[in-house]
Amino acid sequence: MQTITPIPNGSVTSPKGFKAGVGAGQIKYKDRDDVAVVVSEPTAVSHALFTTNQVAAAPVLIGRKQIAKRQPLQAVVINAGNANACTGTQGITDTQQMQAMAGQALGYAPEAIFVMSTGVIGVPLPMPKVQKGIETAVASLSPNLGNQAAQAIMTTDTHPKSQAVQLTLSTGTVTIGGMCKGAGMIHPNMATMLALVTTDAELTQEEVGDGLQTAVAHTFNRITIDGDTSTNDTILLMANGASGVSLVTEEDKALFAEGLTQLCRTLAQAIVRDGEGVTKFVEIQVTGAKTEAEAHAIANTIGTSPLVKTAFAGSDANWGRILAAAGRAGVVFEQTAVSLSIGKNQPDELQLLASGLPLSYAEADAASIFSASEFIVQVDIGAGSKTATVWTSDLTHEYITINADYRT
Amino acid sequence: MQTITPIPNGSVTSPKGFKAGVGAGQIKYKDRDDVAVVVSEPTAVSHALFTTNQVAAAPVLIGRKQIAKRQPLQAVVINAGNANACTGTQGITDTQQMQAMAGQALGYAPEAIFVMSTGVIGVPLPMPKVQKGIETAVASLSPNLGNQAAQAIMTTDTHPKSQAVQLTLSTGTVTIGGMCKGAGMIHPNMATMLALVTTDAELTQEEVGDGLQTAVAHTFNRITIDGDTSTNDTILLMANGASGVSLVTEEDKALFAEGLTQLCRTLAQAIVRDGEGVTKFVEIQVTGAKTEAEAHAIANTIGTSPLVKTAFAGSDANWGRILAAAGRAGVVFEQTAVSLSIGKNQPDELQLLASGLPLSYAEADAASIFSASEFIVQVDIGAGSKTATVWTSDLTHEYITINADYRT
Repeated sequence: MQTITPIPNGSVTSPKGFKAGVGAGQIKYKDRDDVAVVVSEPTAVSHALFTTNQVAAAPVLIGRKQIAKRQPLQAVVINAGNANACTGTQGITDTQQMQAMAGQALGYAPEAIFVMSTGVIGVPLPMPKVQKGIETAVASLSPNLGNQAAQAIMTTDTHPKSQAVQLTLSTGTVTIGGMCKGAGMIHPNMATMLALVTTDAELTQEEVGDGLQTAVAHTFNRITIDGDTSTNDTILLMANGASGVSLVTEEDKALFAEGLTQLCRTLAQAIVRDGEGVTKFVEIQVTGAKTEAEAHAIANTIGTSPLVKTAFAGSDANWGRILAAAGRAGVVFEQTAVSLSIGKNQPDELQLLASGLPLSYAEADAASIFSASEFIVQVDIGAGSKTATVWTSDLTHEYITINADYRT
Repeated sequence: MQTITPIPNGSVTSPKGFKAGVGAGQIKYKDRDDVAVVVSEPTAVSHALFTTNQVAAAPVLIGRKQIAKRQPLQAVVINAGNANACTGTQGITDTQQMQAMAGQALGYAPEAIFVMSTGVIGVPLPMPKVQKGIETAVASLSPNLGNQAAQAIMTTDTHPKSQAVQLTLSTGTVTIGGMCKGAGMIHPNMATMLALVTTDAELTQEEVGDGLQTAVAHTFNRITIDGDTSTNDTILLMANGASGVSLVTEEDKALFAEGLTQLCRTLAQAIVRDGEGVTKFVEIQVTGAKTEAEAHAIANTIGTSPLVKTAFAGSDANWGRILAAAGRAGVVFEQTAVSLSIGKNQPDELQLLASGLPLSYAEADAASIFSASEFIVQVDIGAGSKTATVWTSDLTHEYITINADYRT
């Protein structure tokens, strides 16, 4: 039987052949690890997706070239505290230096090393500190440090985000592990989402590329905290084949895709839950659209509307704002065909609108759902059969406090 | 010499032939006028622009038809406190009733009456109260009540917004007056921007239509408080020709366009300054773009970014966030060509970035500019010669407090 089983305390080193190490370079934080190195002994078929922001950090510029060449990877170096963004040619040189430092310490070619950075924008990397961090991290490499690696890449995250699942395929067992760091941009701009997913499945370049793309489209690309994308957003998938198990049957392929998506969804949702000032986790389901893209556009507009998100913060089941946000998403629909319902566990616990008109319901029932720390809003636009889901948060005083702080 | 002269205490009744009246219908507010009627004795050539939101209120649905027919207008009826949005066929009937009531009281055909509503969404209009308001307003009609009309249409605005200018054209003098109400959506969704512009110039249908479109494109369409567009946004221009002066020369046309744009800009900026929780008024200038549309897209993304707007609230000259917002506007540019400067009065008082790299400047100088209640941010993307300006505000605790409040 094919199953997906979560691994307790699973991490990027749960799949066979992966090790992690951590080091304290004091790049910005004084009393904690801030460099993580993840190594795959078997060479890993890899693919990455990057920020679409026109302003992209040096490690993104270098990483894009590695991925375009389908460069197999041996290791990833990640530093927290400095994003190496808006740092010009010096930034490019510094990222290449990080590749060279890790390559030398590990005995691999520099181009087999992938670099990610997160932290302050516009400040050159303090390279001696980075070097110290990398060397300490390499010296500590072990299959047991996956969770410490997730801790070392944090910036303003309040807790590390790690996850692993085991899949029983037709010819054996494979494992997928992952970690990410999320949405903190306090001081002055933590730049922002980094994720690494590892697997010991034996995958082709195509399976890695398509698999990542599909999983991310419905997970990391479906979360929003404030609609701001960053200069450093990167997700990397490494498949080292150490399990000796490949995707043989159609069922194998489907199960692997589902396992990868589940893992990515859990990590992505963890970013929203740990977002700045977040007290509520809200699932926006848009149904009845002509296309998935239209459903997504509406869900996204609702999920980023400041008026909707402040209503969430106030536990106010303010359907007028939700409807008005849907109406400005650039999607044509008939307002008289719209219905809206909400619920704590199921989207249809309480219907508020039918045919574009408010139903009579007890305000207390609606407020009780919106007072929960997690709830679902479902908007059906009555135009077709396509759907999309976005996960978002409330917009709170705490978000303002965090982000209006002086950098000094 | 052709000049544009502001009229002290000017209003929609400053142009010849216009009268206003106000009445207290107690539609929602208990102790103030909440209905305004503005009448033009000569029939007015008119044009209106409406919300692009798919969820449009009943008066918008009716108004669109009147404008499509190029219906000349005699009067406008505006009520505050109830938006007549999401009210289905009852809403349509109620708007038609308002046309009939005002038409009867004034002795005009119902189709010569234009209706605007603003206030609560999803609640049917209390028609007996509306009728009382309309009748009182008609009974009070006078050329002196323009400013009271601006007061009567307020919802959560903290002060009325009126303005008038006089233009000296080649063959005589014409006047343009205007009023608007803005961005308050407290309780539960004030729905939102209404504006009326009057003039006694003798204009053709085309001059009214094109003139309004051009003026609004660079004024009302260039302001943002939270990026949320409403179900009721409407701006109406009425030209009654009572001055007997038309646009004869090219200079006349240019001066009228400039006068109309100036008036609309002042009104639009007044809405931002009176926005919910607003403590800062910020002009975003984007220069060096390939097209005006691209410049506008970037200015708009910067002006609606929660991270940028919270930095404004914190007087934090956080250029990294401004750059990151520019980079996600969907416009292709080279990050190494970007420069950024700021100032209290001029955009070039302090340059922070050149060629995509931070310059060395005193943080205190930058903080001093961002501490002002009004300042300018100029981003040059170095791709061309087109520009666009957007006026925005900061995002403050007070905005959250206002909008997270329970409706009850």
